[in-house]
Amino acid sequence: MTSNPLTSRFIRACWRQPVDRIPVWFMRQAGRYQPSYRALRRQYSLLEIAHRPELIQQVTVTAVEDLQVDAAILFSDIMVPLEPMGIGFDIQEAVGPVVHEPIRTIGQVERLKPVNPSRDLDFVLEGIERTVAALGQVPLIGFSGGPFTLASYVIEGGPSRTYQWTKSIMWNAPNVWSGLMERLAAMVVTYLTAQVAAGASAVQVFDSWIGALSRPDYERFVEPYMTTIFAQLKALQVPLIYFGVGTAHLLPAMARTGATVLGVDWRTPLRHVRRLLGDEWALQGNLDPVRLLAGWPAVKDGAEDILRDMGNQPGFIFNLGHGVPKETDPVTLRQLVDWIHHWPVEPAPMK
Amino acid sequence: MTSNPLTSRFIRACWRQPVDRIPVWFMRQAGRYQPSYRALRRQYSLLEIAHRPELIQQVTVTAVEDLQVDAAILFSDIMVPLEPMGIGFDIQEAVGPVVHEPIRTIGQVERLKPVNPSRDLDFVLEGIERTVAALGQVPLIGFSGGPFTLASYVIEGGPSRTYQWTKSIMWNAPNVWSGLMERLAAMVVTYLTAQVAAGASAVQVFDSWIGALSRPDYERFVEPYMTTIFAQLKALQVPLIYFGVGTAHLLPAMARTGATVLGVDWRTPLRHVRRLLGDEWALQGNLDPVRLLAGWPAVKDGAEDILRDMGNQPGFIFNLGHGVPKETDPVTLRQLVDWIHHWPVEPAPMK
Repeated sequence: MTSNPLTSRFIRACWRQPVDRIPVWFMRQAGRYQPSYRALRRQYSLLEIAHRPELIQQVTVTAVEDLQVDAAILFSDIMVPLEPMGIGFDIQEAVGPVVHEPIRTIGQVERLKPVNPSRDLDFVLEGIERTVAALGQVPLIGFSGGPFTLASYVIEGGPSRTYQWTKSIMWNAPNVWSGLMERLAAMVVTYLTAQVAAGASAVQVFDSWIGALSRPDYERFVEPYMTTIFAQLKALQVPLIYFGVGTAHLLPAMARTGATVLGVDWRTPLRHVRRLLGDEWALQGNLDPVRLLAGWPAVKDGAEDILRDMGNQPGFIFNLGHGVPKETDPVTLRQLVDWIHHWPVEPAPMK
Repeated sequence: MTSNPLTSRFIRACWRQPVDRIPVWFMRQAGRYQPSYRALRRQYSLLEIAHRPELIQQVTVTAVEDLQVDAAILFSDIMVPLEPMGIGFDIQEAVGPVVHEPIRTIGQVERLKPVNPSRDLDFVLEGIERTVAALGQVPLIGFSGGPFTLASYVIEGGPSRTYQWTKSIMWNAPNVWSGLMERLAAMVVTYLTAQVAAGASAVQVFDSWIGALSRPDYERFVEPYMTTIFAQLKALQVPLIYFGVGTAHLLPAMARTGATVLGVDWRTPLRHVRRLLGDEWALQGNLDPVRLLAGWPAVKDGAEDILRDMGNQPGFIFNLGHGVPKETDPVTLRQLVDWIHHWPVEPAPMK
């Protein structure tokens, strides 16, 4: 291993190449469970941090240093690129994103503006440049929300349990749906391309809420946009990670989109995913995040189950099945990283 | 067809026998979407209705008459049998069940009382007797919560998104978990047996929240109790329906429990379930309930997709993938029943 993020064990695992140790990082590894982050949040809102390059760097890098994980993930919020599209929103404590004027008509969709990242999201790109410089050999993962998940916030006006408006528009107003999804997909491509140009070594699409869709609805109303996105991003030659929650019924369709790595939640054992899909994809996951709140034996038991199946397979990145819970003890998380890094990986056969 | 609930098209479909029309009923077919139910709820709480045999009958039967569905479902709440076990709770508007003292210790578990339905839940049994008399040839489905779903309310103290306490006890306190699950499973068997003795022609176990568990956790901590329950209920010789939400990853395990009918949510197409499991189980489902809020074309499109796959297979009962949303127009639901009943079922081959 040289001191180059592109030959790091995380990136090698994404490409299903042999690794010396199992790479590990955590969704929401920078966040409320950290005393340092909570302290910063007493001064700045989440969006203020996400708009300041020096704070993006600080928060992103601190998580890596504290945990000794194998990848950094850009500190930001999936809503950030919607603002330059002309979508006003707040992020409300204990609620989440609240969109000022939900978008439900073709007129509103047609007024959405294309995003020019170097002009509109320069603070993110500068945050990435600073972070990459500070990280040295540790790779940075850029990210965007997936178009369905972003559309759901934009159409509902906030978090939803039923996705009533989103699904109604999907089923009943094909021009509103396709107009919105096309614009969001174009934004995702432009935004992630700019993130890679600024130094990100991989990108992850968080399509967290796709699990609410039936498989036929996903195949018809979401998969084509994801396929277009990944086809366009392929030229960047960085790993493309695709993650959603509750996707057991969608995995074959998600695999077809062109992602390099599939992020899987805790519900489906990764050996079942391998059996279902074959070896073409790297897999990332999938410890039940609740185990972090249940004491070290529960953490270790869950991690051991995963590593027994996946620890000696190429193309495996350890992560949680969803984000780090805010009640997590940072010591537990650090202990888990050390434990993963001590797992003996069999040397790759000589070729 | 004679005028006997046991030869009704619903019961025949549960046993995978040929039917003249596709049977249909809806989870929460008696509920807030009905003007008559809302009017009654201005006088009585949910639990008051569930404690009065004459109101149980009225609410249960009115839904069947209004909708012309092929089965009635006992009007009650999954929390009702917990009260005689010694578990105090309220049902709070817009929250759900709130348990006064969450149960998390072996001492609390050991103080739980066994339920004697004819003494403790006589009002339910009398409600069933009255309802069955009023229904005539329409079969009544009795029901209970599943032990995991009940345990989650009892341990968390109310609804949960993470099931943190439930999972912690499951992983860390095997005696508390097994003690609680054994007592709940014993209650479920006794309660459903009494419901059948009082006249129910089938029973459904609502294990709504099992989808939060990983497949290994389900297999280890829930499946054995469900298998015991269904093994004991088998002697009743009525169809045993098993339902949960978000169970795509659990279906093979759920199928092994001994259920006659699997209730599937809207996420997984039933033809995929058939392909996965084979023909041994009747399937019940699985229209996305949100379609009921999206206008008739969305309802019809979704129902057509299901019937094209399942309409001419033995062992299919039309239902939603979860309960009727409270914003549903009753006219839409009635229209759906009529539409299902007009679907041409091919005559069974002569034998």
